[in-house]
Amino acid sequence: MTDRIWTAAVLVIGDEILSGRTQDKNVSQIATWLNVQGIRLREARVVADVEDDIIAALHALQARYDYVFTTGGIGPTHDDITVDAIAKAQGVAVVVHPEARAVLERYYETRGGLNEGRLRMARVPEGADLIPNRYSGAPGIRLGNLFIMAGVPHITAGMLDALTGTLEGGDPVLSAQIGCWVAESEIAALLLSTERAHEGSQIGSYPFFREGRVGCNFVVRATRQDVLDACAQELAAGLDAAGWPAIIGGISL
Amino acid sequence: MTDRIWTAAVLVIGDEILSGRTQDKNVSQIATWLNVQGIRLREARVVADVEDDIIAALHALQARYDYVFTTGGIGPTHDDITVDAIAKAQGVAVVVHPEARAVLERYYETRGGLNEGRLRMARVPEGADLIPNRYSGAPGIRLGNLFIMAGVPHITAGMLDALTGTLEGGDPVLSAQIGCWVAESEIAALLLSTERAHEGSQIGSYPFFREGRVGCNFVVRATRQDVLDACAQELAAGLDAAGWPAIIGGISL
Repeated sequence: MTDRIWTAAVLVIGDEILSGRTQDKNVSQIATWLNVQGIRLREARVVADVEDDIIAALHALQARYDYVFTTGGIGPTHDDITVDAIAKAQGVAVVVHPEARAVLERYYETRGGLNEGRLRMARVPEGADLIPNRYSGAPGIRLGNLFIMAGVPHITAGMLDALTGTLEGGDPVLSAQIGCWVAESEIAALLLSTERAHEGSQIGSYPFFREGRVGCNFVVRATRQDVLDACAQELAAGLDAAGWPAIIGGISL
Repeated sequence: MTDRIWTAAVLVIGDEILSGRTQDKNVSQIATWLNVQGIRLREARVVADVEDDIIAALHALQARYDYVFTTGGIGPTHDDITVDAIAKAQGVAVVVHPEARAVLERYYETRGGLNEGRLRMARVPEGADLIPNRYSGAPGIRLGNLFIMAGVPHITAGMLDALTGTLEGGDPVLSAQIGCWVAESEIAALLLSTERAHEGSQIGSYPFFREGRVGCNFVVRATRQDVLDACAQELAAGLDAAGWPAIIGGISL
């Protein structure tokens, strides 16, 4: 049990997200992973493949949060400028990492060999360590509390896996869900009074619509199990008492 | 034909995105809609339901872009603080909009009537206009070049629909896709030389992996149709010549 709260931000780098072509999935998967590490994702930003934009966002996020994760822009093509932008932002040189080069040489040995584009993926900000990528050769990069990950979600998932348990964090946030066929606007006052009655709890309200009916999933969050349980039980009892049968752990749709 | 480029940012407000519980879909749908209006989405941010964070992000984005769209935090519950935060950021009061109140009275007439929580959804920053919501009563809000939209994606879709054609924009960005069973790292140099040979074009490279094979979708973007066509054709010819049959308009997976 510790009171220190560890925070993180995600910086998504890529024109394809801002053009609407690609649906980002990295923010949600990094968020979910961070919860387990006892680290809170506090902000996410999406910027284009533009050096000045990357640098400005990076500086802003590093000034505010304990950890920063970037995704995207570390591939072999001309629009992959993340490593150069980050090195510039940190005031360090870009160097070829010998281990990354060796990994890529092995990976491409049977795939046409290294070329100029592929060698780009061995370039890292000076002083950086590698994050293993078990799917496609090119590694992720760790530079202190800055983590440079892939844009392709399943590759980033593998990199997160490799980082599991290696970051300092606090108490994980616990959560409990209560589903109910009620309009959230019907019981807004109950949500507020229940949250206030349980210090350290937070109640989120996520409405849904199915086949002409409205319902809502309520998610109670707390770092202490007893606070979580007490708050969730009181909310469920309050919904029941108001004539809206609540299902602890149920309904998501 | 105009040279003025209109820009926009999206500010997603909601703990549920940062906790990983909910996958944001509003950035991509707003991005796609903006393209058609001739407006470029240049940045997106996700912040928690925290007043200071909302205000800081809003000020930063309004200073840089022509339009700002927010999503989330305009519902009936205690964690819906978007309207209050935005009013504070703009230095105006929060008022009950008579038309919004009338809309909500009609909507809830057969649904249990207005209560305190539901009336919150009639509150707007002073001077704001409403954006119709054909799904669930509570309207969106327009305050000059700031658009306050719902968090639930299909409701925001309806609001975007109501705004179509009402915003000043420039030339829409045109795009053409070329699919190819090639590793992007194989032809990175070709992408760069082709893009450079066609001023005003941009080539994005989106790799995929299917059943052990690697492939890539290349997306050419330009505001001029002739530039787009010439660049796409040269890229396809270059891929063919390198031994990688290219399919114009094909492969996405």
